[in-house]
Amino acid sequence: MSKIRKAVITAAGEHHSQLPLQTVVGGDGLVRTALQMTLEQIRDSGIDEVALVICPGMRDSFVAAAGSAFTDLTIIEQHEPRGYGDAILRAEEFLARESFLHLVSDHLYLTASNRPCARQLIDVAEQHNCCASAVQSTRENEIGNFGTISGMPVARETNLYELTGIIEKPTPTIAEQQLVVAGQRAGHYLCFFGMHVLTPSVLDQLRRSRDESDDSGFNLTDALNALCQSERCLASILDGTRCNIGQKYGLLLAQLAISLGGQDRDYVLGEMIALLAAKTA
Amino acid sequence: MSKIRKAVITAAGEHHSQLPLQTVVGGDGLVRTALQMTLEQIRDSGIDEVALVICPGMRDSFVAAAGSAFTDLTIIEQHEPRGYGDAILRAEEFLARESFLHLVSDHLYLTASNRPCARQLIDVAEQHNCCASAVQSTRENEIGNFGTISGMPVARETNLYELTGIIEKPTPTIAEQQLVVAGQRAGHYLCFFGMHVLTPSVLDQLRRSRDESDDSGFNLTDALNALCQSERCLASILDGTRCNIGQKYGLLLAQLAISLGGQDRDYVLGEMIALLAAKTA
Repeated sequence: MSKIRKAVITAAGEHHSQLPLQTVVGGDGLVRTALQMTLEQIRDSGIDEVALVICPGMRDSFVAAAGSAFTDLTIIEQHEPRGYGDAILRAEEFLARESFLHLVSDHLYLTASNRPCARQLIDVAEQHNCCASAVQSTRENEIGNFGTISGMPVARETNLYELTGIIEKPTPTIAEQQLVVAGQRAGHYLCFFGMHVLTPSVLDQLRRSRDESDDSGFNLTDALNALCQSERCLASILDGTRCNIGQKYGLLLAQLAISLGGQDRDYVLGEMIALLAAKTA
Repeated sequence: MSKIRKAVITAAGEHHSQLPLQTVVGGDGLVRTALQMTLEQIRDSGIDEVALVICPGMRDSFVAAAGSAFTDLTIIEQHEPRGYGDAILRAEEFLARESFLHLVSDHLYLTASNRPCARQLIDVAEQHNCCASAVQSTRENEIGNFGTISGMPVARETNLYELTGIIEKPTPTIAEQQLVVAGQRAGHYLCFFGMHVLTPSVLDQLRRSRDESDDSGFNLTDALNALCQSERCLASILDGTRCNIGQKYGLLLAQLAISLGGQDRDYVLGEMIALLAAKTA
């Protein structure tokens, strides 16, 4: 696999289209949009070119919210809401058969190391020369919100798994029967993180999904399920966390996690304690 | 004074024009813009009509950020950056010589009672039939950021003062010489809260300020300083706090204060503690 140079952000989901425009205070204390944080992470991961797949009519809002991390964003409109799979396929021309990074737009990613989450995943994909999906160990009461994987630990590696299948939003019973991964704590499963490095074969598979799909669209999970039967796909637990800013209080929790991991942690902690003291006085 | 029915929000300051568009999670867990929070407070205070004074070219952004609290906002562009005083004068036609509520747009107001901050202030103005400015007791190390008042306690009232003068952003030395208010804790002064109920005489005074001013503009403080010499002006400590979202980490602290005062305080506290535990693990 040659160096990953391109990224696609899908932001066209009906319920997600406003989320990247929300504002957060970054780890440096400055306000930026969620989109800007994502773009800064992508830039800091060494990516040169980014395509943003959005709903029709949102172009001006996204350009205004993008900030200056990339001077030359490719903006692609998804004219019909036909799912993630279709949104990625819209970027086919932009990708020109290169492998690429894919990010969702309703999550923020916080690294716990000196490498951004996206860079960690790209390193895995480039080293093993195959698709790599980021996953996070997740308690069974939360797996109903995520794509959840089955996989086999890769010999002599930590936190790395051969992907053998994915079930979207499984029940705990189904997970217990089909998705237990060796080495995970009891009641914990590996769920998608919303970040993948994908090879051009994924696009071939997505095109097949499109041909078979009805108007309701098609997703990435089906394509990855098919692909991992025919070629190697990895799942990697990154050193970091995702914050889902699409759920209730998601933006607040992301905000807290960013600030407590930022350069002014002590100041923020002090203010939190002062607020708590004032409220209980 | 007849019932206060109108409000003017000034949001045309060069460094403030983006602040009302920032997003926060409300006390109910739902995301809204800072502007929306302000408009909801105004609506809940019984105001019927709102004028928003903005920078040229920002109309679409403000309309999009305003939400649905008022179906019929009056939007007024301030074509030259000539200060707060000029911004308020832009609304002269809208006001049609009624007394009105004035709010700045770089603050969020959190009530600690069952009445919104704006309603508390309107009640003071209507009861005493004169101008009323909200103030907050502020430690001397912070007074350099605010208009700071001198005043005399009103007999048989708590937290209510006759305004005798205002100094913009005083030093602690000047404050100690000129701004000590009876009954305040040592080293504490009464600073503007960014919320006033103003009578039409303020507009007359602002017009005089305009005639005397140069291109750099004129502010509300000078007009109030002149007015309180000739007619009664009150200053009221409200039961609530202001959050300045224009300062570094301001949006974050506002966010924390709102959430800890909101309906899901216990959930937010629990998540804060979980985050702290994870970060120190």
